[in-house]
Amino acid sequence: MNFWFVLCFVSIAVILEVVESIPKYKVGHFEQLVDHFNFEESASFQQRYLFSEIYWDGKGPIFFYSGNEGSILGFWENSGFVFEAAQKFNALVIFGEHRYYGTSLPFGQDSFKHGNIGYLSIEQALADFAVLLTQLKKDFNATDKAVVSFGGSYGGMLSAYLRFKYPNIVRAALAASAPIYMLADTTTRDFFFPAVTKDFQDADKTCPGNVVQGFIEIENLKKQGEKGLPVISEAFKLCKPLTSVDQINHLIGWIRNAFTIMAMCDYPYPTSFLAPLPANPVNYACKVISGSSNKMEGLAEAAGLAYNGTGGKLKCFDPWIEFVECADPTGCGTGNDNLAWDYQACTEFLLPSGTNNVTDMFPELPWTLDMRNEYCNKTWNVKPRLQWTGTSLWGKNISSASNIIFSNGDLDPWRPGGVLESVSSSLVAILIKGGAHHLDLRPSNPNDPPDVTAAREQELALIRKWIS
Amino acid sequence: MNFWFVLCFVSIAVILEVVESIPKYKVGHFEQLVDHFNFEESASFQQRYLFSEIYWDGKGPIFFYSGNEGSILGFWENSGFVFEAAQKFNALVIFGEHRYYGTSLPFGQDSFKHGNIGYLSIEQALADFAVLLTQLKKDFNATDKAVVSFGGSYGGMLSAYLRFKYPNIVRAALAASAPIYMLADTTTRDFFFPAVTKDFQDADKTCPGNVVQGFIEIENLKKQGEKGLPVISEAFKLCKPLTSVDQINHLIGWIRNAFTIMAMCDYPYPTSFLAPLPANPVNYACKVISGSSNKMEGLAEAAGLAYNGTGGKLKCFDPWIEFVECADPTGCGTGNDNLAWDYQACTEFLLPSGTNNVTDMFPELPWTLDMRNEYCNKTWNVKPRLQWTGTSLWGKNISSASNIIFSNGDLDPWRPGGVLESVSSSLVAILIKGGAHHLDLRPSNPNDPPDVTAAREQELALIRKWIS
Repeated sequence: MNFWFVLCFVSIAVILEVVESIPKYKVGHFEQLVDHFNFEESASFQQRYLFSEIYWDGKGPIFFYSGNEGSILGFWENSGFVFEAAQKFNALVIFGEHRYYGTSLPFGQDSFKHGNIGYLSIEQALADFAVLLTQLKKDFNATDKAVVSFGGSYGGMLSAYLRFKYPNIVRAALAASAPIYMLADTTTRDFFFPAVTKDFQDADKTCPGNVVQGFIEIENLKKQGEKGLPVISEAFKLCKPLTSVDQINHLIGWIRNAFTIMAMCDYPYPTSFLAPLPANPVNYACKVISGSSNKMEGLAEAAGLAYNGTGGKLKCFDPWIEFVECADPTGCGTGNDNLAWDYQACTEFLLPSGTNNVTDMFPELPWTLDMRNEYCNKTWNVKPRLQWTGTSLWGKNISSASNIIFSNGDLDPWRPGGVLESVSSSLVAILIKGGAHHLDLRPSNPNDPPDVTAAREQELALIRKWIS
Repeated sequence: MNFWFVLCFVSIAVILEVVESIPKYKVGHFEQLVDHFNFEESASFQQRYLFSEIYWDGKGPIFFYSGNEGSILGFWENSGFVFEAAQKFNALVIFGEHRYYGTSLPFGQDSFKHGNIGYLSIEQALADFAVLLTQLKKDFNATDKAVVSFGGSYGGMLSAYLRFKYPNIVRAALAASAPIYMLADTTTRDFFFPAVTKDFQDADKTCPGNVVQGFIEIENLKKQGEKGLPVISEAFKLCKPLTSVDQINHLIGWIRNAFTIMAMCDYPYPTSFLAPLPANPVNYACKVISGSSNKMEGLAEAAGLAYNGTGGKLKCFDPWIEFVECADPTGCGTGNDNLAWDYQACTEFLLPSGTNNVTDMFPELPWTLDMRNEYCNKTWNVKPRLQWTGTSLWGKNISSASNIIFSNGDLDPWRPGGVLESVSSSLVAILIKGGAHHLDLRPSNPNDPPDVTAAREQELALIRKWIS
């Protein structure tokens, strides 16, 4: 459950506060072809979608959320802005689930087997959405209504791609925190962990130094061999103490991932991912570490935040459950959604490289293309294709597209992979100061920085212009 | 060898006249993936392409012909305008062969077997071209050079689709006689044979009446049962006389197809398809029929033109070789290319319906969706999908595209399926008075009507504007 785009769930307290803006959903199922591009394949599956007509007056547009790597229910609950916008536009709201996630499994529990998983691709997923929308427009007697696609992170990329590839179906798109340039074949993959580091640097100049110090203390204990293991195990409250020096790298990945989660979910109000995070978790973590006399222990306490929250109930941690190594250097969890994501990271979704301790504050944990190729061959018997997405999904040559907003927050470590400058008057980049990962897609909150409020207003104005 | 887009080959005499404008090609082969959309499939095949650098100065653009349903060699020889344009632009010329045609067979001679043929789709073919171009731009050290896609008929549709789906690769497109609106799910399929009829009507008002009279005479003989068969067989110079009344419908299809060929190839100079056609074959045929005292015999002589030419060497005809019934109501021939085309006509390429003797001059030979479905299920075990191409290839909702010329001649029976009105200043429709099927793509000819000369000039001006 630990995607590269972390679903920093709104915490219960916040949900109670904004509950009025998130309507109840109805569930629909659509018979979707497993393979849109091969007519000899006639197998089909049930694609799930959620919808609500409560704001719709039969005349307004359709607001479509392009589901990404997880159950569509999570996106419904965490994309409050879509409903706030729908209310203003009297829009019909539809959330489409991405194939191979949630319950939209083409071959049920066998979906992840060799021979079945191959139908998981961005192109098939986009075709699903296009075909689904074509039919739903008919079903809702809305064939002449404009569709606006919304999405955050990978979902934001899909929203933009829908407008790229199916502009006949989708009139405009809001691609929030969508690092589409990351999939250009000319992109270097080394931007991510330096950006995570910068978040901590910006919160407190001394913070990265303290973090590095904590890792050095781990390194020093590692040099002591087995003797140092109990000290580390105790500091990190491990349920099962380390038994070998070789395990330390995994622990480091677990720590690094905690910092990644805090950077992505660095919202100005409490949220919850694996555990309830405080408001501004990056500042919070920096304070915890700087206040610790032993920096390794500070590191442990800060990492615990991501996995256990401020008032966490876990008595101890199990990094082998909480952080599963996979093709995504920010780790995977367990379960179907994570299998699907791992496969995508092994095929079309070329994710960032690892850490080097030079341009980032983390120990050297490389994730080179060679390492990825070896892992993907072993795990899925597939070979990533570097050039394909640059060709298929336009790389950085997107100027012929139109009616797309690319929003990015300056706290979001995915930001460097995004479209940060407007390409034309209808390919508009919006930068959100004080914004973490797709903050603008979340429901309005009293603690929102002014920039995100302004961004949402600009987004609504552009959408209104483009669909009128 | 009888595609719906008839390759009305330039006759030898004409080729000699214009031979200077068609350079010799070099042949290349590119290792192409059989399935671009499924990473579990790693099989590859050799895609053929032709190219010439003789006009290229290393600075000019790339002119790419999007190969359609046949060997790429035929397109190279019959698209002289591409070379005339390349000379003016100092362009690199590349002609890409369409998968499953010519020698670009993904599974060799087994390509047309069940389980192998399914990788034949427009989406896969477009991906082939996009991937091929991406690599060739690198190979020719031309990554910053604009690509212009050219094509006629189905190849023109592919040229437009390339700009729709891969505008990062293709800057502008000339889609000559490309009936892209035909693949919208809202299109009726009944435009084709009325348009063929209109061509004959426009050439000579009495012509359709004479044709109808010829068919009535066949019908009267048919009513006589077996007694009438020798009369028909003799009139049509059949190598094997008819043995059953049931065969007459096939003969009618063969005749109807001859009229289709003449309408599509109604050029102002001699060309050759199955046989050397005279200049303006529609006028020629009308004269032949009106000059015959027996209209059935006139019909026979006119039909013979298409299959045997003006000075034909055939002593007799075999309609079962010259016209093979298939999913395309204008018939197929034999051989691999025709198998591939039949499969495409059974999947994404929903071709026109048949004739009804009310809106056209031909006997009632229906080709309904039900008939097509039954045929396709029996022949290929596939089911056409009416809505898919309207979704995938944008139907009639193309306004977000740019830099495409849609040219159509008023003599071309495919014209009603084309884009006949400009959609915007960069989606430009050009109508060519006196133009048959993609006349503008052919080499300049002293007998060209002024409209096609003007059209070519406008096309070059638009291309120059769009790639500058």
